[in-house]
Amino acid sequence: MTVLAAPLTGVVPPVCTPLTPEGEVDVPSLVRLVDHLVGSGVSALFVLGSSSEAAYLTDARRRRVVETVGAHVAGQLPVLAGVIDMTTPRVLDHVRSVTEAGANAVVATAPFYTSTHPAEIARHFRLLASRSPVPVFAYDIPVSVHSKLSAEVVLELAAERALAGLKDSSGDLAGFRAVVTGARTDAGVTGFTVLTGSELVVDAALAMGADGAVPGLANVDPAGYVRLHRLCRAGDWERARAEQERLCELFGMVRLGAQTGRMGGSSSALGAFKAALYLRGVIACPVTAEPQVGLSDGEIEGVGKFLARAGLL
Amino acid sequence: MTVLAAPLTGVVPPVCTPLTPEGEVDVPSLVRLVDHLVGSGVSALFVLGSSSEAAYLTDARRRRVVETVGAHVAGQLPVLAGVIDMTTPRVLDHVRSVTEAGANAVVATAPFYTSTHPAEIARHFRLLASRSPVPVFAYDIPVSVHSKLSAEVVLELAAERALAGLKDSSGDLAGFRAVVTGARTDAGVTGFTVLTGSELVVDAALAMGADGAVPGLANVDPAGYVRLHRLCRAGDWERARAEQERLCELFGMVRLGAQTGRMGGSSSALGAFKAALYLRGVIACPVTAEPQVGLSDGEIEGVGKFLARAGLL
Amino acid sequence: MTVLAAPLTGVVPPVCTPLTPEGEVDVPSLVRLVDHLVGSGVSALFVLGSSSEAAYLTDARRRRVVETVGAHVAGQLPVLAGVIDMTTPRVLDHVRSVTEAGANAVVATAPFYTSTHPAEIARHFRLLASRSPVPVFAYDIPVSVHSKLSAEVVLELAAERALAGLKDSSGDLAGFRAVVTGARTDAGVTGFTVLTGSELVVDAALAMGADGAVPGLANVDPAGYVRLHRLCRAGDWERARAEQERLCELFGMVRLGAQTGRMGGSSSALGAFKAALYLRGVIACPVTAEPQVGLSDGEIEGVGKFLARAGLL
Amino acid sequence: MTVLAAPLTGVVPPVCTPLTPEGEVDVPSLVRLVDHLVGSGVSALFVLGSSSEAAYLTDARRRRVVETVGAHVAGQLPVLAGVIDMTTPRVLDHVRSVTEAGANAVVATAPFYTSTHPAEIARHFRLLASRSPVPVFAYDIPVSVHSKLSAEVVLELAAERALAGLKDSSGDLAGFRAVVTGARTDAGVTGFTVLTGSELVVDAALAMGADGAVPGLANVDPAGYVRLHRLCRAGDWERARAEQERLCELFGMVRLGAQTGRMGGSSSALGAFKAALYLRGVIACPVTAEPQVGLSDGEIEGVGKFLARAGLL
Repeated sequence: MTVLAAPLTGVVPPVCTPLTPEGEVDVPSLVRLVDHLVGSGVSALFVLGSSSEAAYLTDARRRRVVETVGAHVAGQLPVLAGVIDMTTPRVLDHVRSVTEAGANAVVATAPFYTSTHPAEIARHFRLLASRSPVPVFAYDIPVSVHSKLSAEVVLELAAERALAGLKDSSGDLAGFRAVVTGARTDAGVTGFTVLTGSELVVDAALAMGADGAVPGLANVDPAGYVRLHRLCRAGDWERARAEQERLCELFGMVRLGAQTGRMGGSSSALGAFKAALYLRGVIACPVTAEPQVGLSDGEIEGVGKFLARAGLL
Repeated sequence: MTVLAAPLTGVVPPVCTPLTPEGEVDVPSLVRLVDHLVGSGVSALFVLGSSSEAAYLTDARRRRVVETVGAHVAGQLPVLAGVIDMTTPRVLDHVRSVTEAGANAVVATAPFYTSTHPAEIARHFRLLASRSPVPVFAYDIPVSVHSKLSAEVVLELAAERALAGLKDSSGDLAGFRAVVTGARTDAGVTGFTVLTGSELVVDAALAMGADGAVPGLANVDPAGYVRLHRLCRAGDWERARAEQERLCELFGMVRLGAQTGRMGGSSSALGAFKAALYLRGVIACPVTAEPQVGLSDGEIEGVGKFLARAGLL
Repeated sequence: MTVLAAPLTGVVPPVCTPLTPEGEVDVPSLVRLVDHLVGSGVSALFVLGSSSEAAYLTDARRRRVVETVGAHVAGQLPVLAGVIDMTTPRVLDHVRSVTEAGANAVVATAPFYTSTHPAEIARHFRLLASRSPVPVFAYDIPVSVHSKLSAEVVLELAAERALAGLKDSSGDLAGFRAVVTGARTDAGVTGFTVLTGSELVVDAALAMGADGAVPGLANVDPAGYVRLHRLCRAGDWERARAEQERLCELFGMVRLGAQTGRMGGSSSALGAFKAALYLRGVIACPVTAEPQVGLSDGEIEGVGKFLARAGLL
Repeated sequence: MTVLAAPLTGVVPPVCTPLTPEGEVDVPSLVRLVDHLVGSGVSALFVLGSSSEAAYLTDARRRRVVETVGAHVAGQLPVLAGVIDMTTPRVLDHVRSVTEAGANAVVATAPFYTSTHPAEIARHFRLLASRSPVPVFAYDIPVSVHSKLSAEVVLELAAERALAGLKDSSGDLAGFRAVVTGARTDAGVTGFTVLTGSELVVDAALAMGADGAVPGLANVDPAGYVRLHRLCRAGDWERARAEQERLCELFGMVRLGAQTGRMGGSSSALGAFKAALYLRGVIACPVTAEPQVGLSDGEIEGVGKFLARAGLL
């Protein structure tokens, strides 16, 4: 069985889920996408995260994704799987499903839909840890779950070995730094993985001491993020900044749909990533899941211009 | 098959889900709870709503609930079932499950976890309607899904026959009134059901023209709400107000847990309803689902005092 | 000196502030507006509230408003004045100014801009009460100050005589009812005034036992709200509801600007009220304060159509 | 007259406002504080910001602050003054006051209390710029004003010369980076100052290309921030990170009050900064303005421990 490095370092892309026009998982496209990512030097794969449209996938489709990716990578590199659901009992069902399908770690958010007290959030992670056969990562994503994991609770759970790592998509780099620093200095915390999900400040997060990054945009340009990671590791901050700024410019593609007012930022971003993968020949169809509004042909063309400017077409 | 009245009127309690200490559905208790409600004169039952802890129930437990209730009421009165999940494809899986298990209508929220554009929310309900074998009610619950259904979109979907009714838990009585008035006056809207989920202003909602109410507290005192509904229908507003104020006082039980700071308002309220059902001898065990913090013995005693003052012990 | 009734009952319009094209207070228009309101049978006037654009008025203009209105009504009916500012010391400066200018009571919000703890909010009102020469009303307006006054704290301050009344613009009718009921039943609370600022559910608020209403739309149709208040007092709920629904339809004017996307809901509503007063010949100019975007000529025409349908032109 | 560098670089502390036990500005303490800051090598002073408790200061006290600081520094270094108020006309009154008292630039937030459309926010800054005799900086502080300035609008106003700079207290480092990069690369934007107010990630902000920092904690340890700034300018990122981490640990003092539940985070932080200045012998009295709850003696002792650990006592 694949043993997860502790900490896990490098680029861990949150893998998009290619769909057929009917909304089924497009398995051949998913396999090509995995090859595209692995071939670029990523360290691990994160399936069934927000960029994977996990919230839009039925249980059967979620399972199909983990099975496909797990079988294809066959232990070459670790597969982390999101277990995104409202509360502990429902999340545990996903833990069972994704670990049966081969996931090497699970990534769980705080409860959502319900209003949950901080003590209940900590209890949620402790319960998951005690019942999961694989390591549990916390997924801090306030924009989706409407609560923020504090550095204190994350470090407490890390010291208890309830959590193996953190995937931070909060956008709060000061709070992120507190976890990074605590993971290095707190007695009792060892081997804890701290990953940033903020694709526009990966250089800053790595400079602070983060172990790695989970950038949605790495679907589109995995080689760019792998390069960025290596430059940071080498302490070449000047060139790292230039690479990061290039990626920030490429990221501008996510606004093409939203700026028309026809859709929100999430559909616009997911649509752009898939359009880019389609234009780069990685996936067969750029469709996103229902009920999302899709990009227009003109907006897809706009994505192409971003790719061209970035030298990716 | 049970035909749903259009509009559906009266008291439609959101049925609590009794659990065993292990967290399984306590079927005998659920059957007693249904008898307790039906015997008090309610018009229909709403299972798998927020008061039912639907967010905490695995798919298997959700299905057990619908099957149990459906089999037990056996068509005497309609069963509405919540299909609470993040997006259209996942909700449709629940629609399939609950209708196979006998639900006469489904109650769906706007998408959550993801950020969804108003156009996508409307699309979500249209897609559900086109694929559901039973009528679809919209469940407006901004505190959980972090978006509000506007009166405009609800009435538009009502005119299209995509929605059969609204369960409003938004607390926004002015917006609710716009739907109630529109349902009465808009050309093209007929038979649309407007239900309030705000247990503390049921008299006001009925005075405005609402068809009925879905009060969580009706688990504890169904006879009180049935009486309140009848007084309002009879235009006896003086006695309706007195009955409503008595129920408002009884509702104070929901704060017992939260005021200690050990838990939030949701766990405190669900715990109090279940403690009350336990103390009244309806269910066998007052436990709530994980990861919720439960009421202490002292807090359960406090619930008993509220029941005593209301003449319910 | 005008003695404030305790409780104060009836319709208390939040008086719009007519401006000249240069943004100065248009004194003759303000005097005409006061006559328009007083002539319709309102009980008191509330100047420098949100509908008065108090947030947009310099201290000099605020003082001009109170002086003008105070001198013109000359004690015929009470004048309540908003003292809207961020914290206690700044609010106390306004208290001094408006009471020197003749205000009979002051209306203060919780602190804003700063993050304030509930204990500090209670302290704020206690400090204001101890230093104000006139009664203090609490102005509950979460949409502006981003905190909600709980019924508990309002009733506690009422029992201490720190607060003389509440102007509730929270839209939370269940919380409002808790104050209304508490003001009637709590030992130690006497003569406390509970006013709703929710113009679309005034009938419901009065049915619950509110003392009166502070509806922004009463600038446009004061006679309608006075009629509504009288019908409610007479227990003629059927006709009250019809009158309220007529006013709800008239209120539709507030959406004309916002639905174009050129401005937000606040500018759209304030612009519509002023356009209506202009079209009805009460004020000389419909301009709103900077930096608000104004209604277009077409949108002002639209306001006219609402007035015509309501028989107000 | 002091000419503001364009861009302004270095450490620009948001100067605390020492108060007497009666709540008046403690002028001798303020003068000592200014000497403490200037002597440590800061580049400019920012008075009447959030850390200055500007929201709690009456107009007379605000003016006293600017006059005192302006007279004392006498043009040695620039003085920026906050003009924090709800809307354009009220802010312009403050612009007049602080520039008469000697401010070299003004720092203005988006409108607050009112709901303001993005177009109205841009209009607000344009109006301020057209009427201010000194440069206008935008103060992006969503936690206080409940709206976020987008990088797009900031850069547009920069290109128009309406804004001279940005003080970013949003905590959104990705958005901040977009402004920093745009200020460097956009045609038409020159000499625009980009300052971070996030004291815990100053190294990251400077690495991205920010011009300087406005850290509240610089009141307590100005020399530390000046050192940090110099290390960053020298490209010594290793030692910069160590210095920043030392400051992050010192910052822990802000939680002493809040963790008791007696007050919120804002009162706790302002109280800690003033307690530290008091313990370091800079100001005579650690009191904060009303209605804030103050630190207890034990909490002030706790602040002393943070100072001792940081070698500042």
